[in-house]
Amino acid sequence: MASDGASSVPDFKVGLLGHGTVGSAFSALLEDRAGEIARFNGLRPVLCGVLTRTRGSFEEILAEADLLVELIGGIEPAREYLLSAMRAGKDVVSANKQLLSQHGEELFETARAHGVRLRFEAAVAGAVPVVRVLEESLAATPIERIHGIVNGTTNFILSEMARGSSYADALAQAQRSGYAEADPSDDVSGRDAAAKMAILARLAFGTPVHLDDVRYEGIEHLHGDDLQYARELGLGLKLVGTAERRQGGLSVHVHPTFLYSGHPLSSVSGSFNAVTVESGTITEITLSGPGAGGLQTASAVLGDVVSVMTGGARPPAPPLPLRLIKDVESAYYLHLDVVDRPGVLAGVMAVLGEQQVSIRSVVQRGLGENARLVMVTHPVLESRLRVAVEKIGEFDFVRSDPRTIRVIEEEFS
Amino acid sequence: MASDGASSVPDFKVGLLGHGTVGSAFSALLEDRAGEIARFNGLRPVLCGVLTRTRGSFEEILAEADLLVELIGGIEPAREYLLSAMRAGKDVVSANKQLLSQHGEELFETARAHGVRLRFEAAVAGAVPVVRVLEESLAATPIERIHGIVNGTTNFILSEMARGSSYADALAQAQRSGYAEADPSDDVSGRDAAAKMAILARLAFGTPVHLDDVRYEGIEHLHGDDLQYARELGLGLKLVGTAERRQGGLSVHVHPTFLYSGHPLSSVSGSFNAVTVESGTITEITLSGPGAGGLQTASAVLGDVVSVMTGGARPPAPPLPLRLIKDVESAYYLHLDVVDRPGVLAGVMAVLGEQQVSIRSVVQRGLGENARLVMVTHPVLESRLRVAVEKIGEFDFVRSDPRTIRVIEEEFS
Repeated sequence: MASDGASSVPDFKVGLLGHGTVGSAFSALLEDRAGEIARFNGLRPVLCGVLTRTRGSFEEILAEADLLVELIGGIEPAREYLLSAMRAGKDVVSANKQLLSQHGEELFETARAHGVRLRFEAAVAGAVPVVRVLEESLAATPIERIHGIVNGTTNFILSEMARGSSYADALAQAQRSGYAEADPSDDVSGRDAAAKMAILARLAFGTPVHLDDVRYEGIEHLHGDDLQYARELGLGLKLVGTAERRQGGLSVHVHPTFLYSGHPLSSVSGSFNAVTVESGTITEITLSGPGAGGLQTASAVLGDVVSVMTGGARPPAPPLPLRLIKDVESAYYLHLDVVDRPGVLAGVMAVLGEQQVSIRSVVQRGLGENARLVMVTHPVLESRLRVAVEKIGEFDFVRSDPRTIRVIEEEFS
Repeated sequence: MASDGASSVPDFKVGLLGHGTVGSAFSALLEDRAGEIARFNGLRPVLCGVLTRTRGSFEEILAEADLLVELIGGIEPAREYLLSAMRAGKDVVSANKQLLSQHGEELFETARAHGVRLRFEAAVAGAVPVVRVLEESLAATPIERIHGIVNGTTNFILSEMARGSSYADALAQAQRSGYAEADPSDDVSGRDAAAKMAILARLAFGTPVHLDDVRYEGIEHLHGDDLQYARELGLGLKLVGTAERRQGGLSVHVHPTFLYSGHPLSSVSGSFNAVTVESGTITEITLSGPGAGGLQTASAVLGDVVSVMTGGARPPAPPLPLRLIKDVESAYYLHLDVVDRPGVLAGVMAVLGEQQVSIRSVVQRGLGENARLVMVTHPVLESRLRVAVEKIGEFDFVRSDPRTIRVIEEEFS
């Protein structure tokens, strides 16, 4: 690898923990790009050891390495390895969203205490450099809100459903195309997106946010009807994570969401990820790109390694706690299958009125035993909507569970 | 300003050159955000001096400052100030696209020779952090192509024209809304976009690119017909800058361009900017947001200041020259006003055939004296197309100058 004339450049030793799909893509990319990185940085990154389930010694790799890359995934032993490495004064890079969303403060605190860098671009949105942008470019900007499509599997499924597929067919297609695991529950339940939103919220607002603090709802209960409705009105239906200042605190949640057609996230399709950051200073910026894939993740990891090599990262900032607000106002779409007989609409409206849910539009379709009521509300506290929906579900003229979907309306126009 | 308890933190002294719209927004934002930046960085940014046309001494500010921010614009005295500051070992931040696109190598070389940082996020796309992302996140990625909408004025005008306005009305509207200068020629001619593409190309490909190396074409000659055609076919018509590896070299150019409806840039509207970066490793990522505005630019400048404070930037890399390719292949839309009589299409096709321009689609509209031929070609060298168009313009049955617009087709599908 000395053919580029940079052979006299000192080595920067990278220890690699984990050698699955991303780990092997990372090794290959590192070797491929080492000469070019050396030319720019005056240091050549080289692998000094690889730890797998059956090979390698963590202690030997730790002793040798300038930096450790953790691509094992899961909580243990990844957590213990990262903590040990940082306590030994080593910088670390991780792509581990489970760990960061559940033990983030312990990791950040350890990095701070030992003055080392902890980088994790690949944990959030694959090759989309949202971590970097939040940490650095927007360091001077008071952020108000983040909306993110941060799970490529569900976005792929919703894109297929928007073209007419059923949920089951779309999921099967995602599995065949390699966009969904055999067990897709972490993705389709919204839990994977919730973990990523916890990490983004920590970065953007400086407040510790645990995965358990994030309300989330998945896409399993969405019907073709909902997508049909979105298509007719020119809306996008996406699984959107939101972190925003609300009522003096911070709200972080993940829900299926209708987006007006001009919203930057409404046109994000297939397995892509995208994040929109809003602030009074910058209005809004949007970053989008492929969310996952071994090569994209490996590229984000290598970008983190390069940023440590060039001194371009700092230990995490101390936390600045904001109160976490669980119950926030949103507009909602409400879908009811009803029997069409006198008094139905009046009964529904009375319950909504009791809970101070005010209605912006209502459409009734069909006749007789198969009528549907589709309403869009004005912004209302989620808790009030839930109470109303539960009561409405108890009417004998309501033929199946009412469905609700959050609606994001235009704010910059 | 010590109310946040960070009063014991040392100052980081910023000297400001220029105090126009962006300069005053920057001073205000710096003061507003100083406490928060101090909390994260352990240094408090403070202005130690401001140079205007009538006040302040460059030498005194230079002696005092840890870093200089140049917001004067134009070539001199901005160039001399930046060179002097870097020779004195000071880091610098500039938003000056004219200077960077015309004297970039001199500035980069001086920064390298003196080991100082030269940051210029605000010179390219306002608050959209494309410079940071190219320099850092994608440092490990071999970039193949960049497409950018990097001039908000022309994008605003084209968005208005897409809704039916004439060019003159759209320009007047842009001027009333503050999106266009009284003299808009730098914007509408494509020259402003060309300067920004020169800077982006230098960053992405490591090759010195001077503004004079960038072929550019503006939007003044576009007709309502062209926008009408775009609308009918669901295409976007945008002023797109492209920097791409071609034929073993690098091609950098700016042209009005038809984009297929799924292209990430086709939905960028109003005064927004957006840049798409393509690479085999990451597929493509897109960054978008407001391109200009005093506050957005000030925010990008302050982001650069913070990145220098935290050590998160390195001196520029040495250049790696690629041959600049001026004549590249693209597909084109070709619009002809013709008299409808026998032999017209045959005559046109014969000239196109001589220049090896092959046609993918052709539509003839209208009758008699007012017929129009609209064609889309397969990819063809621009030089060949120009020869063909010139010859076609000489036919007596062609009633006005032929118009051509570049077409970008889907590549990732």
